[in-house]
Amino acid sequence: MTKKIGRTIRLAHHPCVYSFAAVVGSKEAEGPMGKHFTHVEQDPMLGQKTWEQAETRLQKLALQDALQNGCLQQEELDCIIAGDLVNQCTASTFAARSSAVPFLGVYGACSTMAEALLIAGMLTDGGYARFAAAVTSSHFSTAERQFRFPLSYGGQRTPTSQWTCTAAGAAVVSAEGNAPRLVGGCIGRIVDLGIKDATNMGAAMAPAAADTIIRYLRDTHTRPEDYDAIVTGDLGNIGSALLYELFEKQGIRLQDVHRDCGAMMFDETTQDTHAGGSGCGCSASILTSYFLPQLRDGRLHRILFAATGALLSAMSSQQGESIPGICHLVEITA
Amino acid sequence: MTKKIGRTIRLAHHPCVYSFAAVVGSKEAEGPMGKHFTHVEQDPMLGQKTWEQAETRLQKLALQDALQNGCLQQEELDCIIAGDLVNQCTASTFAARSSAVPFLGVYGACSTMAEALLIAGMLTDGGYARFAAAVTSSHFSTAERQFRFPLSYGGQRTPTSQWTCTAAGAAVVSAEGNAPRLVGGCIGRIVDLGIKDATNMGAAMAPAAADTIIRYLRDTHTRPEDYDAIVTGDLGNIGSALLYELFEKQGIRLQDVHRDCGAMMFDETTQDTHAGGSGCGCSASILTSYFLPQLRDGRLHRILFAATGALLSAMSSQQGESIPGICHLVEITA
Repeated sequence: MTKKIGRTIRLAHHPCVYSFAAVVGSKEAEGPMGKHFTHVEQDPMLGQKTWEQAETRLQKLALQDALQNGCLQQEELDCIIAGDLVNQCTASTFAARSSAVPFLGVYGACSTMAEALLIAGMLTDGGYARFAAAVTSSHFSTAERQFRFPLSYGGQRTPTSQWTCTAAGAAVVSAEGNAPRLVGGCIGRIVDLGIKDATNMGAAMAPAAADTIIRYLRDTHTRPEDYDAIVTGDLGNIGSALLYELFEKQGIRLQDVHRDCGAMMFDETTQDTHAGGSGCGCSASILTSYFLPQLRDGRLHRILFAATGALLSAMSSQQGESIPGICHLVEITA
Repeated sequence: MTKKIGRTIRLAHHPCVYSFAAVVGSKEAEGPMGKHFTHVEQDPMLGQKTWEQAETRLQKLALQDALQNGCLQQEELDCIIAGDLVNQCTASTFAARSSAVPFLGVYGACSTMAEALLIAGMLTDGGYARFAAAVTSSHFSTAERQFRFPLSYGGQRTPTSQWTCTAAGAAVVSAEGNAPRLVGGCIGRIVDLGIKDATNMGAAMAPAAADTIIRYLRDTHTRPEDYDAIVTGDLGNIGSALLYELFEKQGIRLQDVHRDCGAMMFDETTQDTHAGGSGCGCSASILTSYFLPQLRDGRLHRILFAATGALLSAMSSQQGESIPGICHLVEITA
């Protein structure tokens, strides 16, 4: 059992993130990360009849681009590991249904990309798959209607609320290949400190992010300054501030190396997005468009990608439940 | 890459199903499988205020029983791999939130138990976890309201419809231990032949079951008669008949060794359940209460457990989509 230290996971053969891609909507392309997104879909419907079909198409395009970037055929994939926020994860299952590739559905809300990457890492590292794709998506309109209000209702958004990104990301993990490489990770535990405000998900997820990242640092005997970046997604501005507080209580200063995908995605002052971006596609698109290219080119050497999820449903909130948070983590090196 | 033959998965170290348990409702206990269920909850609310909380409790109890049967403490688990049918899988996440055990959420509709078992098998076989629990649940009332009609509406059920079981099953997989053992498996592909009738899920899932089982037989050079049982869940009576037809087209006779958990759960003539049982808890409870004990005691020697899922949502059906099916498979030996 040498691969496992405590409850962190070591990927002894360092599987490679062979190819990757993201597809985003126009609002995401207009934000500070815009220049890093190479595939922008201007039509929020992506030529489809329903928002759900649009999100399905978004996810399909992201995987298609990732395969193309790696000169891979879909048939070479041993499995697709995918999830999204739509009830019963239909954006993912409908995106994969024409592919004839073995499919593992996963659900970790906005942490899904890290969960899928970690599983892809273990499957390729362990020799159970040669190529495994991790794919996630989110769409502003599918999420807003499902979790909050009908779009046409025009509800006022609270200052702590986050904006679900219209975005998808895909990463193909392979047993063989060059940088970037997955060297380890940590499966998140569910942490629930009793936050019940479904429009303040950053606060609900920050404790889970602290739990996972601190566990990983301790188990690997590393400190934040050992990494070029410790990336969370999507705590937003409010959740990030809470994360620093939780780290300070443990005597650790995080802010110098911390980046949050939710906080990076939009310009709060001009884009009216309040506390930041969110959705499975937020961290997935920033990982695949901003961080992975820098790791591939050697501009970054070592990062932690710790995506966070708020495990609520519209019904659990209506029934007065608090919001459980989770954070899965993968370590990626150049 | 010796562990992989084609796209089937070989678990070289044969991880063991260390302990297991099921908890079912009163209707399930009154059916033909009743005498095999040792833990029956007579109150469909399980003392809770909502059906969703009741399902959460059901899943919690199943894992608790499984741990107890193996003289294990929750802290010994390296991860819980769980899923259910409730939107955003909240039955699973809320069941795990007090546990402090790393959690991987999975979604495969009624195929979830096979998906979770297969991932647990790979994680323990590969050395990424020592003990990994696969847990799933379903509840008649959470599913009926979410996917079909308000219960108080008293809608007429079609002859092809299946009855969602109030049941949960849990299996703890370990790198070490005795029988039963997981020796291999197959990640399902999504198969959609265009069935749009959400009250005929057996028909939607049968092609996926045929695809996975036939792929596994071919890759392992085995025939149905090499197994004591080829178990599907939950095709029900109608889906099972379609499965035999699909096998016959390939020149394979399946019916002699085939058992379907959906068809086994209820007595159609006296329990008014129409085409059979369904729900993530159906195959999970029959696997853990009927098949695994027989494998442990040597009364069965070799089975395939091939759970099937209908990857629809209420919204996808309303939007006129057809129903994608999936079937994940694990081979279990004594």
